[in-house]
Amino acid sequence: MSSTLTQGILQELNQIRLLDPHSHINPLAAASRNLTDILGYHYYTELVHSAGIPREAIEAPGIDPRQRCERIVAGLPQIQNTVQYSWFQEICREFFGFEEPTIEPRNWERLYDSAQRVLDQPDWEAKVIERSQLEGVFLTNDFDDPLEGFDTEFYVPCLRTDELVFKISNPAVRGRFQSATGSNPASARELRTGLAALFQRFVSRGARACAISLPPDFTPEPIPDAQADILLEKLARGLPLDPSGLRRLSQAIFWTIASLCDEYRLPFDLMIGVNRQVYPAGVFQGQDLFDSRCSLFPYAGLFRAFPRVAFPISVLSVGLNQELVAYSWIFPNVIAHGHWWYANIPAFILADCRARLQAVPETKQIGYYSDMYKLEFALPKFSMYRRILATALAEDFVIGRGWSEERAVALGRTVLRGNVERVFPGLGK
Amino acid sequence: MSSTLTQGILQELNQIRLLDPHSHINPLAAASRNLTDILGYHYYTELVHSAGIPREAIEAPGIDPRQRCERIVAGLPQIQNTVQYSWFQEICREFFGFEEPTIEPRNWERLYDSAQRVLDQPDWEAKVIERSQLEGVFLTNDFDDPLEGFDTEFYVPCLRTDELVFKISNPAVRGRFQSATGSNPASARELRTGLAALFQRFVSRGARACAISLPPDFTPEPIPDAQADILLEKLARGLPLDPSGLRRLSQAIFWTIASLCDEYRLPFDLMIGVNRQVYPAGVFQGQDLFDSRCSLFPYAGLFRAFPRVAFPISVLSVGLNQELVAYSWIFPNVIAHGHWWYANIPAFILADCRARLQAVPETKQIGYYSDMYKLEFALPKFSMYRRILATALAEDFVIGRGWSEERAVALGRTVLRGNVERVFPGLGK
Amino acid sequence: MSSTLTQGILQELNQIRLLDPHSHINPLAAASRNLTDILGYHYYTELVHSAGIPREAIEAPGIDPRQRCERIVAGLPQIQNTVQYSWFQEICREFFGFEEPTIEPRNWERLYDSAQRVLDQPDWEAKVIERSQLEGVFLTNDFDDPLEGFDTEFYVPCLRTDELVFKISNPAVRGRFQSATGSNPASARELRTGLAALFQRFVSRGARACAISLPPDFTPEPIPDAQADILLEKLARGLPLDPSGLRRLSQAIFWTIASLCDEYRLPFDLMIGVNRQVYPAGVFQGQDLFDSRCSLFPYAGLFRAFPRVAFPISVLSVGLNQELVAYSWIFPNVIAHGHWWYANIPAFILADCRARLQAVPETKQIGYYSDMYKLEFALPKFSMYRRILATALAEDFVIGRGWSEERAVALGRTVLRGNVERVFPGLGK
Repeated sequence: MSSTLTQGILQELNQIRLLDPHSHINPLAAASRNLTDILGYHYYTELVHSAGIPREAIEAPGIDPRQRCERIVAGLPQIQNTVQYSWFQEICREFFGFEEPTIEPRNWERLYDSAQRVLDQPDWEAKVIERSQLEGVFLTNDFDDPLEGFDTEFYVPCLRTDELVFKISNPAVRGRFQSATGSNPASARELRTGLAALFQRFVSRGARACAISLPPDFTPEPIPDAQADILLEKLARGLPLDPSGLRRLSQAIFWTIASLCDEYRLPFDLMIGVNRQVYPAGVFQGQDLFDSRCSLFPYAGLFRAFPRVAFPISVLSVGLNQELVAYSWIFPNVIAHGHWWYANIPAFILADCRARLQAVPETKQIGYYSDMYKLEFALPKFSMYRRILATALAEDFVIGRGWSEERAVALGRTVLRGNVERVFPGLGK
Repeated sequence: MSSTLTQGILQELNQIRLLDPHSHINPLAAASRNLTDILGYHYYTELVHSAGIPREAIEAPGIDPRQRCERIVAGLPQIQNTVQYSWFQEICREFFGFEEPTIEPRNWERLYDSAQRVLDQPDWEAKVIERSQLEGVFLTNDFDDPLEGFDTEFYVPCLRTDELVFKISNPAVRGRFQSATGSNPASARELRTGLAALFQRFVSRGARACAISLPPDFTPEPIPDAQADILLEKLARGLPLDPSGLRRLSQAIFWTIASLCDEYRLPFDLMIGVNRQVYPAGVFQGQDLFDSRCSLFPYAGLFRAFPRVAFPISVLSVGLNQELVAYSWIFPNVIAHGHWWYANIPAFILADCRARLQAVPETKQIGYYSDMYKLEFALPKFSMYRRILATALAEDFVIGRGWSEERAVALGRTVLRGNVERVFPGLGK
Repeated sequence: MSSTLTQGILQELNQIRLLDPHSHINPLAAASRNLTDILGYHYYTELVHSAGIPREAIEAPGIDPRQRCERIVAGLPQIQNTVQYSWFQEICREFFGFEEPTIEPRNWERLYDSAQRVLDQPDWEAKVIERSQLEGVFLTNDFDDPLEGFDTEFYVPCLRTDELVFKISNPAVRGRFQSATGSNPASARELRTGLAALFQRFVSRGARACAISLPPDFTPEPIPDAQADILLEKLARGLPLDPSGLRRLSQAIFWTIASLCDEYRLPFDLMIGVNRQVYPAGVFQGQDLFDSRCSLFPYAGLFRAFPRVAFPISVLSVGLNQELVAYSWIFPNVIAHGHWWYANIPAFILADCRARLQAVPETKQIGYYSDMYKLEFALPKFSMYRRILATALAEDFVIGRGWSEERAVALGRTVLRGNVERVFPGLGK
């Protein structure tokens, strides 16, 4: 058994201070205020809902945090096998000193109270950052986020563009676009001017990336300005677009954003393959699913068109990860990026991680990001990844290829930390 | 090496008495009469045919069992590597005391004779049930099965609906439908009345599930009664339907059956992804294959429409299993169900099993079913699964998560036995 | 840990002399002339290009080998994690006695010179063949290859048909066809006559296989001669074909070739799933990628139509490999063939290899081929495969099934060597 070796490598990996290249942290409320903030993470609400807790019980309006916590806890016994539950257990042990082997209806209240004492500390945010060895956390910012009131060197802005690409026909979004940019998007030129203003503002506030999540059937394609003009003008006049018009408009905006990534030298994070609202009766953020019939092939034209733009790609299936391995080994501007959402499970991570380490240039893969909404999750999620990474390094490189332990750790450092700085340059300045 | 640990867990799993939630047992002839009944399982005939034995040799009309056995045995040396062969070897060792390492042309006759002595025992059925620790076996019953002459508490009826959904245009099937239900399916209303009569009869005879296998391109959708009426009336008048009409009629019947599952509180087992008759020159039951370009996405509307119906889902590919993991973690009424047919191979089972244990609520996954045609197969097939389950529990939970052995065994018990009772309630009453 | 067992099995597998059933060796220049021939393998040029080396640097016209080597070496530090790099390292250690743990800008020149001394030996080709334990190497021959000047018993001709199927509309290809066959392909009959002449010539020169690589959307189908006549006549008159006409013509030629494989008793190697020119700005041979949305289902009609033709199938994705496992277990004429290109990575090979060993008749799988362009690659590539095969045999058969080590080695010998002779009969005569 290679466990001593794996433990040795893990110990070294555990020393590495982290830059987390993708999260949903609200920098104005980054840490949890109570246990419910932690247990309210969609992984728990959706899993306990799946195991039988009604959505209404969890999402009742006006429900107080303690009561909500109790209701979520009621479903924990059914999900204790899941790795997501294990993150929660690790948080409770590491941060709140909770040593019992499970958290359940009979013991949650004591936990709730001890958690409260910890979370109430005025310097808790700083403490959890220190304990989690975080040196920077990327955000996911709405296009009209003021980006103010926080340290943008630590909380790195990232322009999230889903709304721009897929919701521009919504008058509210158009209104916010006009407020944020001063441009009324009634033509391709005005749209681009407005988008450029957003890029300008984000970059001036230290943004290091642009990001978007995409449905399995999205096909990036350039759309002639003349066509986009017609579509945008229709919208400006309050007329609806048919599905094909909406699709072409999304393509036009997406392509324009890619060209601005080129102009402003921002990597464009693509998160590929999610269908939204597949289960609309599900809990908040627990309604989307993926479709394995998805390929990177439709993205090849994008990668060719913008050779200077780095595209860190996240995928949801093992099958698509195999394509991603091949694409990042062939295209200089394609980067394999973390282990996203439904693929963020040890069985899938290990398979995906091994394939990347074996076949993608070491400088072209970013090991992991937390995707977290609250700071407390960096610790257990990165821990999980580091254990898997240590296993792959021990088995495939030290044992399988005869590498020294030091060399294996150096490779680990490159994918875990070095490449975040390499792909998103300018960090920490 | 974790082998002592794995063995310890396996020993505990081996104590668990089984409910087998899906088989093709004929309860009037459940045990094998001779070795040929065992070796005539389609896994052997198709594998030896694939390895070179002509179909005609195996399926010659009038061939006697001993001769047929000899012809299948002729192909065994080419398939001794397969796990399917290993089931046969285990049956011969465990039930017939055959200790040689292989079965082949030089030694099969002695085996045939000793098997005969065992199988000829008048209480063999009871003995094999006891040795296999079976406490119940689900059947696969034709819609017009009389369901008589057997103990429905042990041999649990299950309404198989493939013929109803996909063959209703066949006059013979329509005739049997009318005989079985008293309804002539010439309208949506009559169809539903007849189907309800089937459900009534099955439920009154202790049925615990409805089941169907579906091709990769099937799309569940409700069809308005008015449309179904036109199609059914055409059929009633002896007119043919075009492919699109046939497809819509299948959708209409499928949806009606789902609504009856709701009404009669029966889980609806969906076995998704098989193309029939891909190799029509193959041996009996050795002609179907799967298509990996298949998704659960088209089923989302069904899961939404019938939130009270439990849908235990079986799939054939590792890619689709990854979707199934996500769907059973999100949809309360989706259950991951066993390891079906082409996916029933250790390499695939282990990958699928690990992912489910790591990410699906423990109450929402049924570990295994035998899919057997003869009782003798429960023992080796469940043995294979238990070894894999023990490996996953040992490595991922005891070693990987620090669980006690007892706790890991309890999780094993839940997926192997407890969830069969949970998903198909009313068993054993 | 099973390492002693695995090592023992590996030692036995290492004694097996090899027939390599697929390569791109030029038999008139089979061995490398200098280190650049080795490092010019597309795996290295594409990986270092992906890691940042401009294509122009590597492919500058008139660049001398030593300079080209230096430029490729500049990218090696970024790809030392890859298994492809490890092949290079193994070549340098085993053939050139280079013992340093890495090859990089600081030490490559010494290596270049020692390699030169080895490669300059007049009997180097014989030496590398002996060291690599090769007893035969299949080639990939253009249809108009003269097949002269080499020992066709060792370098086994194989008729590659991509150009015929997909480029027949190109006047240059048509011209070469006419020169090689004496037939002007202006009708289905003339086409078939010409193709038959190619088969005749190849078979008379010892060819053992016909081969083709196919895009993911190719659908084999017979085309009536009358249709093919119209298309061929159009081409003969210098008129262009529309995409659908080109597609039908490809189908017609492909089907004719399959029928000639039947007539001339040649296996037809199908390499399924590659899109050409996905990244046309990439290095030579580093421009193609696969699409995971691919199935063997469209090939079922071909397998049915030519039951006497053996179809060794290569695939590029784990998902398609799972289909291949099922197809080779059902269709007598489908053979699982090696681990191709993007799937030729240990993480994928191990998964694919295990599934095949567990579920496909042992006589219906060919373990590995080198796909090499230069002889030096047989050694590290087959070594990689043998280590993986030893692991699978040790874990799944000796430990998992209680087989003796000898029996496991025998299974290894069958898939590594025996089946090459079985599937491509007449070798070594």
